[in-house]
Amino acid sequence: MGQANQPAIVLVRPQLGENIGKAARAMLNFGLTELRLVTPRDGWPNPDAGPAAAGADIVLERARVFATTAEAVADCAHVYATTVRKRGVTKPVVRPDEAAQAIHEEPGKSAILFGPERSGLETEDVALARSVLTVPINPEFGSLNLAQAVILCAYEWSKQTGLVQPTADEANLPPAPQEQLDALIAHLESMLEPKGYFLPDARADSTRRTLRTVLTKPGWNHLEIRTLRGVLSSLQRPPRG
Amino acid sequence: MGQANQPAIVLVRPQLGENIGKAARAMLNFGLTELRLVTPRDGWPNPDAGPAAAGADIVLERARVFATTAEAVADCAHVYATTVRKRGVTKPVVRPDEAAQAIHEEPGKSAILFGPERSGLETEDVALARSVLTVPINPEFGSLNLAQAVILCAYEWSKQTGLVQPTADEANLPPAPQEQLDALIAHLESMLEPKGYFLPDARADSTRRTLRTVLTKPGWNHLEIRTLRGVLSSLQRPPRG
Repeated sequence: MGQANQPAIVLVRPQLGENIGKAARAMLNFGLTELRLVTPRDGWPNPDAGPAAAGADIVLERARVFATTAEAVADCAHVYATTVRKRGVTKPVVRPDEAAQAIHEEPGKSAILFGPERSGLETEDVALARSVLTVPINPEFGSLNLAQAVILCAYEWSKQTGLVQPTADEANLPPAPQEQLDALIAHLESMLEPKGYFLPDARADSTRRTLRTVLTKPGWNHLEIRTLRGVLSSLQRPPRG
Repeated sequence: MGQANQPAIVLVRPQLGENIGKAARAMLNFGLTELRLVTPRDGWPNPDAGPAAAGADIVLERARVFATTAEAVADCAHVYATTVRKRGVTKPVVRPDEAAQAIHEEPGKSAILFGPERSGLETEDVALARSVLTVPINPEFGSLNLAQAVILCAYEWSKQTGLVQPTADEANLPPAPQEQLDALIAHLESMLEPKGYFLPDARADSTRRTLRTVLTKPGWNHLEIRTLRGVLSSLQRPPRG
């Protein structure tokens, strides 16, 4: 974790320590560790942040505090300002996935600015950014809180790291060899035959094909085939007293 | 809003009303309105849900309560179980973006299951699903809360709403509603029971789960389920002449 191209998450004048903690937690879930705070309302450190971070203490401990937004992004080549609405700003507007891609591809440090909980970023903060980052949201109900906005950006960044993959899927065994499937089908057919399932003869081929199609579709693995063979054997047994 | 192909968000045994409200808020941000609750711990309605929903009241008002997870997904053709870890389940594992794409492309109702805040889904709940949905997360710090897991799924679904393709592939029937699969499984179990298949009792639950997993995997459509019901009925008949 802590890749070189990770963006700094910049909380501008955040109000509640709890929300700073939640943002830290959201970040670390997706491997972001660089938190910057611009004049947090209640000072820093804030005792409410730790419990809300739910273990993401490393992010809080490394957080850096700045007096102005300009200072917080002074070392950054790419600054994104998150806003809900466009506010008539004449800047390119990107989605979180587009920003994530650009952050990965472009050399130079990136920062994503998030405004105070109630009011969002001021025009002066947005003016520092080259792009506006907007989450496409229900036009009839836009109500993302700070940590949610952070987590969507962090999630999109993480998707493109390639480092955080859905942990290897050993459970996903390949389908069993065809001969095992054939043996299963033959077993079932041998049980159905004496019950007249394949009568009348004229339709037997079609009935067999249908049955094979249904049983081929799953792509059962060898363990699953073995389970089903056990089911059939069990059905062939006499009832247990 | 309220598109036909929106997945139902199913909260299984949620603990805090506040978290139900937050999940509703997360949903509506991205246009999801169909909330289902399986035996919420503190009953329903819950006075803590409304304030946390921050205006997403329509989602709470329309929420439906079910006694079991099986009932909550009885009408669903595609059930996704969200889990953090794989728990050795032999089911396909998908990411939120992959699930979102499948939900948009496949005909038939989808549901996404989310477990209780502390413990996550039980094995029995996961057994109902054909796929496991896992958010790729920092392996050293995985700490997504309920509303965050919901919002990532809702966000990914929303991203693809503009891209819906009307793939009218009639040959490709959707999986039968879950209740038809349940009836098939019940039918088979009723035949296996007297044969002692589920003995010893100590292993019965595990054996039932294995059987369910094997039979859930295929995603059989209603015609295929009907064929298999016919197979079982045929096996129950006495031999012919």
